[in-house]
Amino acid sequence: MTVTNPVANLQTLIRCASVTPAEGGALAALTDMLLPLGFKVERMTASEPGTPDIENLYARLGTEGPHLMFAGHTDVVPVGDAAAWRHPPFAAEIADGELFGRGAVDMKGGIACFVAAVASHIEKHGAPTGSISFLITGDEEGPAINGTVKLLQWAAERGERWDASVVGEPTNPDQLGDMIKIGRRGSISGFITVHGVQGHAAYPHLADNPVRSIVKLTEALLHPPFDAGTDNFQPSNLEVTTIDVGNAATNVIPAKATAAFNIRFNDAWTVETLKAEILARLDAAAADQTLRPGREPTKYDVVWSERPSQVFLTRNNALIASLSSAIENVTGRTPKLSTTGGTSDARYIKDYCPVVEFGLVGQTMHMVDERVALSDLGTLTEIYETFIQRWFANADL
Amino acid sequence: MTVTNPVANLQTLIRCASVTPAEGGALAALTDMLLPLGFKVERMTASEPGTPDIENLYARLGTEGPHLMFAGHTDVVPVGDAAAWRHPPFAAEIADGELFGRGAVDMKGGIACFVAAVASHIEKHGAPTGSISFLITGDEEGPAINGTVKLLQWAAERGERWDASVVGEPTNPDQLGDMIKIGRRGSISGFITVHGVQGHAAYPHLADNPVRSIVKLTEALLHPPFDAGTDNFQPSNLEVTTIDVGNAATNVIPAKATAAFNIRFNDAWTVETLKAEILARLDAAAADQTLRPGREPTKYDVVWSERPSQVFLTRNNALIASLSSAIENVTGRTPKLSTTGGTSDARYIKDYCPVVEFGLVGQTMHMVDERVALSDLGTLTEIYETFIQRWFANADL
Repeated sequence: MTVTNPVANLQTLIRCASVTPAEGGALAALTDMLLPLGFKVERMTASEPGTPDIENLYARLGTEGPHLMFAGHTDVVPVGDAAAWRHPPFAAEIADGELFGRGAVDMKGGIACFVAAVASHIEKHGAPTGSISFLITGDEEGPAINGTVKLLQWAAERGERWDASVVGEPTNPDQLGDMIKIGRRGSISGFITVHGVQGHAAYPHLADNPVRSIVKLTEALLHPPFDAGTDNFQPSNLEVTTIDVGNAATNVIPAKATAAFNIRFNDAWTVETLKAEILARLDAAAADQTLRPGREPTKYDVVWSERPSQVFLTRNNALIASLSSAIENVTGRTPKLSTTGGTSDARYIKDYCPVVEFGLVGQTMHMVDERVALSDLGTLTEIYETFIQRWFANADL
Repeated sequence: MTVTNPVANLQTLIRCASVTPAEGGALAALTDMLLPLGFKVERMTASEPGTPDIENLYARLGTEGPHLMFAGHTDVVPVGDAAAWRHPPFAAEIADGELFGRGAVDMKGGIACFVAAVASHIEKHGAPTGSISFLITGDEEGPAINGTVKLLQWAAERGERWDASVVGEPTNPDQLGDMIKIGRRGSISGFITVHGVQGHAAYPHLADNPVRSIVKLTEALLHPPFDAGTDNFQPSNLEVTTIDVGNAATNVIPAKATAAFNIRFNDAWTVETLKAEILARLDAAAADQTLRPGREPTKYDVVWSERPSQVFLTRNNALIASLSSAIENVTGRTPKLSTTGGTSDARYIKDYCPVVEFGLVGQTMHMVDERVALSDLGTLTEIYETFIQRWFANADL
């Protein structure tokens, strides 16, 4: 079976130009790899007004439990300046032991390796006692509205249940085996508008400069720190990502100022407790008179982002130990169990089953000359294969 | 002589639609008023690349000293929504004892009254012993590049020297006689750019958010106060007039943030000492680590506005006492000697001779339905006439 070769699998996938929202032939190519292995493959197209339709794929081998799900995406980010690439971004050329192409590590590489690992397992041991499925979206790098969320709902409504999931995103900062992600910080964004009173800069008492207020409000979000970190998480961190007034006249006090912020928060908080803390800070700053002596409290409002991410931490020994020991066994390195970095689709999967993330080395993701060492593809396939064996052996523990 | 009637003079001037930079016939109409009084009238057109040509007027009665100059402008601000006016803005209609029109108080009204006052003085006493001149620009409400500055230079180069000047801007907040302006605060604007390092909001340690810095820098300008005021001036006041980043993505830390500020400052400062104080505050804030723990000082730069205004205070008893006593004599009110408000062309005149400002009540200036009470026109004419008599009587004191 050729699909035991992750390099060939990855070349096939990279040659499909599946920049979000285009399917680009990538899901069709994956289907062609999975059908000969015995998978039942289904395609599901999700729609939402105002967004492009997105094709997704769900494939299952087996009908019984325990049920292990591999999750990922075939869509890729744009190539940027194609002329700046050493090798064309969709050619999948190999040079000096590296395979070049958009998606090489994020994350067609992970899919290629997991397919190869399953194929190799079947070749050696037959299908596992239980089920393996692929939950693959085409909308991870885009708005992510017609992707993993809807695919999970669709599958769950058809009775699908999972015992554990591995997301194949590139989790290793430097070397294969560095890091498993066992949770993620949460993320909330907010948009503040301060309502002042316009006027002439020479008559500030007749106006109410909203810039004074936006400075005080944003400062209250930036200091003091929200926490000092927890056992499994780094400290929560808030960034004010923009402040905008748009007043070109230096003799005019503007009427309005806006700001946006984003906080990545740990398990000392929930979305609800954090919103309450932020509003308390803003209210205190609005009443502060340091920059607005003798004034009424600032009039402001906050709009929250529609889809905040809850923080989560996976505590499932069978899953974590199977993966961790497979990594140690193959690489000799003990992976760090981390919760750092941005959000991922794991935040949706965690509502259905325990989830961890492990894939390739992320250094070139989203960059020109995205590429992967051929040796890493072999090593990751071996890790996944060892993990599959151990997980099915341990799942009942 | 009809020009002893300020109402008629003002109607004539309002009916010239002289919105900056248009002359609109206003200077021609003024010429027609001054020639019969014996004035030598000259027109001077000023040009500058990138700005419209502007017509200005200089008229002098007499050849000897002492020399009193009346300064002002015939240009007016745009009418805004003409349909919102109760009376058409260039019709100069009278209703219920008020004369409506753009420029009624700012400041065709002041010119109309001074012309009437001079005419009345000549009618009663003949031309004064000495000289009276009108220095009238068409570029006070616009960029003010081709106006009073160049007109003063042009006249001075031709040998004109003045002993005192009255600017006829509307100086009274509520009632005629409230306030003479005997100086003005200075004004400087500055533009700050903070250079940060762009990055992902989930990896702030790899970025350097310029919003953190711009908040700290602008706060340092807003607090503590620069001073508590001086004998003749209110406290200096700084307004941050805009902060702009323009980053629409809440998961991105932006690369750059900008801010602008304007300070109105009193005679505790010069432009030079104030710039030094501002730079010292910015440097201290750039090095402050409250919002940027463990970071190098913020990289920022400041660009100053090209034409800062120096603060000035007029100390000329003959001028101030003549005007103040004329006001008291006519209205029964003792005018406040003030330095409040925005800048005016007096800041340029003060380099040539002592200057004060006194005119109509400013409440409707720049607004829809700009208007003046007919009785105020009569009273201001009487004040100006009394002032002329007293100043020429006192000028040698």
